[in-house]
Amino acid sequence: MRPIKDTPLTRDGKVLVLAYDHGLEHGPVDFGAVPESADPDHVFEIAKHPAVTSLAVQKGIAEGYYPSYADDVTLLAKLNGTSNLWMGEPNSAVNCSVEYAAEIGADAVGFTLYGGANNEVGMAEEFREIQEAARAQGLPVVMWSYPRGQGVKNDKKPKTIAYAARQGLELGADVSKVKYPGSTAAMKDVVDMAGGMKVIMSGGSKRTDEAFLSDVKGAIDAGAAGLAVGRNVFQRENPEQLLDALEQIIFEEAPLDTALSQLD
Amino acid sequence: MRPIKDTPLTRDGKVLVLAYDHGLEHGPVDFGAVPESADPDHVFEIAKHPAVTSLAVQKGIAEGYYPSYADDVTLLAKLNGTSNLWMGEPNSAVNCSVEYAAEIGADAVGFTLYGGANNEVGMAEEFREIQEAARAQGLPVVMWSYPRGQGVKNDKKPKTIAYAARQGLELGADVSKVKYPGSTAAMKDVVDMAGGMKVIMSGGSKRTDEAFLSDVKGAIDAGAAGLAVGRNVFQRENPEQLLDALEQIIFEEAPLDTALSQLD
Amino acid sequence: MRPIKDTPLTRDGKVLVLAYDHGLEHGPVDFGAVPESADPDHVFEIAKHPAVTSLAVQKGIAEGYYPSYADDVTLLAKLNGTSNLWMGEPNSAVNCSVEYAAEIGADAVGFTLYGGANNEVGMAEEFREIQEAARAQGLPVVMWSYPRGQGVKNDKKPKTIAYAARQGLELGADVSKVKYPGSTAAMKDVVDMAGGMKVIMSGGSKRTDEAFLSDVKGAIDAGAAGLAVGRNVFQRENPEQLLDALEQIIFEEAPLDTALSQLD
Amino acid sequence: MRPIKDTPLTRDGKVLVLAYDHGLEHGPVDFGAVPESADPDHVFEIAKHPAVTSLAVQKGIAEGYYPSYADDVTLLAKLNGTSNLWMGEPNSAVNCSVEYAAEIGADAVGFTLYGGANNEVGMAEEFREIQEAARAQGLPVVMWSYPRGQGVKNDKKPKTIAYAARQGLELGADVSKVKYPGSTAAMKDVVDMAGGMKVIMSGGSKRTDEAFLSDVKGAIDAGAAGLAVGRNVFQRENPEQLLDALEQIIFEEAPLDTALSQLD
Amino acid sequence: MRPIKDTPLTRDGKVLVLAYDHGLEHGPVDFGAVPESADPDHVFEIAKHPAVTSLAVQKGIAEGYYPSYADDVTLLAKLNGTSNLWMGEPNSAVNCSVEYAAEIGADAVGFTLYGGANNEVGMAEEFREIQEAARAQGLPVVMWSYPRGQGVKNDKKPKTIAYAARQGLELGADVSKVKYPGSTAAMKDVVDMAGGMKVIMSGGSKRTDEAFLSDVKGAIDAGAAGLAVGRNVFQRENPEQLLDALEQIIFEEAPLDTALSQLD
Repeated sequence: MRPIKDTPLTRDGKVLVLAYDHGLEHGPVDFGAVPESADPDHVFEIAKHPAVTSLAVQKGIAEGYYPSYADDVTLLAKLNGTSNLWMGEPNSAVNCSVEYAAEIGADAVGFTLYGGANNEVGMAEEFREIQEAARAQGLPVVMWSYPRGQGVKNDKKPKTIAYAARQGLELGADVSKVKYPGSTAAMKDVVDMAGGMKVIMSGGSKRTDEAFLSDVKGAIDAGAAGLAVGRNVFQRENPEQLLDALEQIIFEEAPLDTALSQLD
Repeated sequence: MRPIKDTPLTRDGKVLVLAYDHGLEHGPVDFGAVPESADPDHVFEIAKHPAVTSLAVQKGIAEGYYPSYADDVTLLAKLNGTSNLWMGEPNSAVNCSVEYAAEIGADAVGFTLYGGANNEVGMAEEFREIQEAARAQGLPVVMWSYPRGQGVKNDKKPKTIAYAARQGLELGADVSKVKYPGSTAAMKDVVDMAGGMKVIMSGGSKRTDEAFLSDVKGAIDAGAAGLAVGRNVFQRENPEQLLDALEQIIFEEAPLDTALSQLD
Repeated sequence: MRPIKDTPLTRDGKVLVLAYDHGLEHGPVDFGAVPESADPDHVFEIAKHPAVTSLAVQKGIAEGYYPSYADDVTLLAKLNGTSNLWMGEPNSAVNCSVEYAAEIGADAVGFTLYGGANNEVGMAEEFREIQEAARAQGLPVVMWSYPRGQGVKNDKKPKTIAYAARQGLELGADVSKVKYPGSTAAMKDVVDMAGGMKVIMSGGSKRTDEAFLSDVKGAIDAGAAGLAVGRNVFQRENPEQLLDALEQIIFEEAPLDTALSQLD
Repeated sequence: MRPIKDTPLTRDGKVLVLAYDHGLEHGPVDFGAVPESADPDHVFEIAKHPAVTSLAVQKGIAEGYYPSYADDVTLLAKLNGTSNLWMGEPNSAVNCSVEYAAEIGADAVGFTLYGGANNEVGMAEEFREIQEAARAQGLPVVMWSYPRGQGVKNDKKPKTIAYAARQGLELGADVSKVKYPGSTAAMKDVVDMAGGMKVIMSGGSKRTDEAFLSDVKGAIDAGAAGLAVGRNVFQRENPEQLLDALEQIIFEEAPLDTALSQLD
Repeated sequence: MRPIKDTPLTRDGKVLVLAYDHGLEHGPVDFGAVPESADPDHVFEIAKHPAVTSLAVQKGIAEGYYPSYADDVTLLAKLNGTSNLWMGEPNSAVNCSVEYAAEIGADAVGFTLYGGANNEVGMAEEFREIQEAARAQGLPVVMWSYPRGQGVKNDKKPKTIAYAARQGLELGADVSKVKYPGSTAAMKDVVDMAGGMKVIMSGGSKRTDEAFLSDVKGAIDAGAAGLAVGRNVFQRENPEQLLDALEQIIFEEAPLDTALSQLD
């Protein structure tokens, strides 16, 4: 953990990552609801919204599209990821080096760690290399901290999520992205475990606006620094409206009703 | 994905790879129909046909024969491949480094990824190294994107092929070679998943001219950039005729009948 | 083993490591008794106590907090560690390189070796690299020498603990941290096996003050150089008192009663 | 494959390798028939025979004995090999680096590939590194191409041997050493698969002079470049006589009777 | 194998290694008979005896004690070794690099190879790296050549021991340490397999003076260059006497009776 307030990853100390690595992680199915969401240009345009502090994509999309959006979008290069064609034990290929991410203009890097997986030790060692290389490049590091695998019976248990946040702190992440544990009180325990490191909530699968925004509000009230969101934004026809609502909650610290009033 | 229109890999934005790595991948059996096809000189001569934008071979054939054809043939060095003497889980040895490929004159490099295989993570990490080394050498990268293995029940399912194309895009290929999903409509979904990356259809095993050319026409109509073909060319007595027909379909965007009229 | 009396790791040849890597190794559960102990600042403050010769933390906590305490605390960077979300064979990820530890100001490095584990060979080879890199950086090396795994039926057997200390000596540690074998006589055998290398006792889980201090006294009487303590300090409301008592036993070589009189 | 006619590995385009790595691969048993054959000096003396174009030995024998024979013997450093004390899946340790082989005076390097073995991918990747390092040192590369293991039911099947020769060509060997498939016609198919790469026949276990020389003659008639022979030479009292006979067949292209007339 | 007569490893072409890595390999149990033998100083003092041509120890003992004995003792740094806390397949961790061994003053290096073990290939490849690094540093290499594991039913069979010696020769050791095969005749076969490489006999577990010295005499009569001895020296009260006796047998080529007369 290093201070990141002077990096492009935050705005007023808050973080809203638009995540768009679903094409690799989940495949075409995630683009079924809104077919144009398969087109990276469509999502880069959404990422210009002022509430979005960075866009997380894999290497190929970064090198193919980011050059056209470099002035308007902050690039969070997601360095690992794997298809779900494979159904084995959780693991994630390192698809991009830190040095190459820096070369194509990344402002920050992201890495998934599956705590509790059979490959946890190997993934943690890959994280070490990436974190230290990112320090050398001056790039902040976001950990997708997702306990998973044989050793993890329930990855939504508040203690497990709190442990995940702590792993991020101890291993040297600047921001950790964790699942929402279901309540503000539980999220507060998670944030407490993170010390001075920022915690952001993972958006998860698409649900109703009210359910989703209520969780985000709960996380912010608990002290979370923000949110990483993907499907709840790009699987809808009017993503800007939802980003307006998120801006109210995250950056304006507005009540839920004010946020909901941004929507049709 | 990087723009490749200024590279020798394309002609008018189209791609026709003559693939000739069957001696390694399948062994002598593929040369049974036309014995002289075992002789690399025979296939290098075919590759002089103007419709062929590059010839894909393994390292040993490249270093032994390419010097005599450097003025007439574009070399696509296939960097991995494995014999089928071994019947285990899908995997592919990296037989040539990018640096050595560049040293022997390669204009582009090719790599097979078996998405869904037990070795997917390892193969993707090998692809990372090769893709970044190819960027450093200024060589375009073609991915043979072939889901296969325990996690893949049916590698001809359109969704699986679309996923394969998306893997190519997200991981940083410039061109992805995928199986034909059986119809223009299905191929269009595949092309849509590939964003701005070029998709080419894999020729597959030898079949009737009409069946084969009809598939190629379907792929082109769906927006594919072209084709990689091996056995349908070198397992016939008159490969030039078929290349004439492919030229009509791919580069002239001619109807199927015009292409078929090139044949005896 | 190298002479370490001139390094910041010792005071008058004695060692008292305050260990604080429980957030990674055990998770939130270890902070339940005293919630503020989850806050690294809380523990860095404790580490200012003059009896503490160094504070052992993982990389992320070192880089986030040590800059504020560099004048008052000696940093022992613990280089490996793993969550207990995973229940497999004992192993430990290398989370920090020696070079990076030196860069962020570490005065010494620590490494866990699980003798007898299926991964013993791999861990010993990681230790080799770390030990030699630490020599190059001039940093003393502390081994957490903990036999564990399939080959170790009882990790509290005196012969096993003596073997653990010997492993530290033979492999090149400057200090080895081992479990207390239960008596002064048994600890003397452990110290005898360590040759000129310093042995320190591991504090272990929280127990009564008298039980804990009696063991420490037994270790010191046996020739141990000191103690590494975590939970017995930070899982109590008045850690300074216990550190006062430990100072009496370790540095003043006072009798147990004098030490106990430091407590309420 | 590179042109090798200007290298010391050939004489008039022909190749006769005297192979002497049996002490490692098979152990003392191969020296039982002629005890002095255990002494490397004995075999280096044989290798002075003008029919021998190179002597293949492991690193230790090369560095210990080659300095005394550097003017009279061409050194083919065999870079991998394993004892048969171990009965597991076929594999072969890389016992010598190309750089060290060059340093001790090697004129060429040799490498065994077990196509079809579970370790085929790993061995092929080791071959890549060795082949490219050998190119950098200007040393020709001989592949011992021996399909073996779970995937290979019968390693003497002509198609399998032809496949082995093709692997040598595609992977970049300059010469491939394969088993004799049993007839001139079958060997011709093997040679056809090898394109412009030289194929040599493996001598195999000791048999009658007529049986052995008849096979060699069959191979030469099929277009093979020569032979690698070990036991059929050093397991006899008068190795020079057999080398005289081989010289007739390989270099003089004499009929079998002429060759047999060289023998007692 | 390189000529080593000009290195500090030999005296008049003979070798007597005092081996002292039992604390790592066997643990405290080997020091039970003579407790002071656990103290490295005790054994370094013994190593000053003129019959001892080198002392073999692990890294930690070398760096901790050798500086005080550099004028009187020749240091043979044993580079690998593993505790017997672990009961798995034979393997041995590389605990010290050649470069570091040279830095702390080693005159030679030692390495254990378990021929026939499941890890034989990996260990042989580690030996390659160490042997070549040792050549670069000008340090002779001693192989502890001990067939062991699933593939080795009886590691005392003369043919197996002869194979072990041959492995040392072929892989590039300068001296190989093997078990005694039980008779002078069998040992002669072992020495014959080693070509010009020196073979030394392993002392093994403690036994009567006459039994032990009789074996040593048998080995010397067979042409062995000497002995590596540990327990038969340090597990006795008067090690100098036994070294006097060994000096007679090894360096003076005296009869057994003369050697026995050195003892009480």
